[in-house]
Amino acid sequence: MLYGYLGSMRTKPGHRDEVAAILTSGADGLKAAGCHLYAVALDATDDVTIWVTEAWDSKEAHDASLQLPETRAAIAQAMPMLTGEFTSQETRIVGGLGV
Amino acid sequence: MLYGYLGSMRTKPGHRDEVAAILTSGADGLKAAGCHLYAVALDATDDVTIWVTEAWDSKEAHDASLQLPETRAAIAQAMPMLTGEFTSQETRIVGGLGV
Repeated sequence: MLYGYLGSMRTKPGHRDEVAAILTSGADGLKAAGCHLYAVALDATDDVTIWVTEAWDSKEAHDASLQLPETRAAIAQAMPMLTGEFTSQETRIVGGLGV
Repeated sequence: MLYGYLGSMRTKPGHRDEVAAILTSGADGLKAAGCHLYAVALDATDDVTIWVTEAWDSKEAHDASLQLPETRAAIAQAMPMLTGEFTSQETRIVGGLGV
C-alpha cells in the first residue's frame, strides 16, 4: 500500500496563491523521489488554507524528500508567508482511481 | 480548476476493510462521470477511519455522481457498517503531481 499524507497549512492573508504556486512548481520533481500524487488545493470556505494530499512509495520516501535541496528551498521560500498552523494525517492508501 | 472533495468516515469496529473494498471497487466507474482522482485511504492512527480524496471536473459532476445507480448501491451496502460520523472539506485543486 502507498503511504498517504494529508496536510493543511494556513497562509498569512493575501499570500495563499503565492504559496500554492511554490508548492505546485516543485511537484513534478517529486516523482523521481517516489511520489505518486501531490495534489495542492485551496480550501473553498476561506482564503488562507491550503490542503495537500500526497501518495508515496513509503513513509521513508516521503520523509527523505523533505531533505531534497529543491524541497528545502521551497519550504524556506514559503515559510515567511505561513502562520505556522498545520494539520497532518498519515494514511495507508488502499486504492481507487488515480492512485 | 478541478473541484476537490476531502472526506472522512468512521466505520463500525471490524468493518473498515469491507467498506474500503466497496469504495475502491466502484472507483473506475467514476471516470466516465468526470472524476479524475478517488483515493481511498485508511487512517494510520486508528482502525475505524477512512479518508477519501476526490478530484472532479466540477461540483456538479461530483454531486450528480451520487445519483448514479452503482454509487447509490455502494452507499446502501456500506451505510450499515458506518457510524454516521463524517467530515468533509471542499477545495479547488490548483495542480501538483497526478492531478
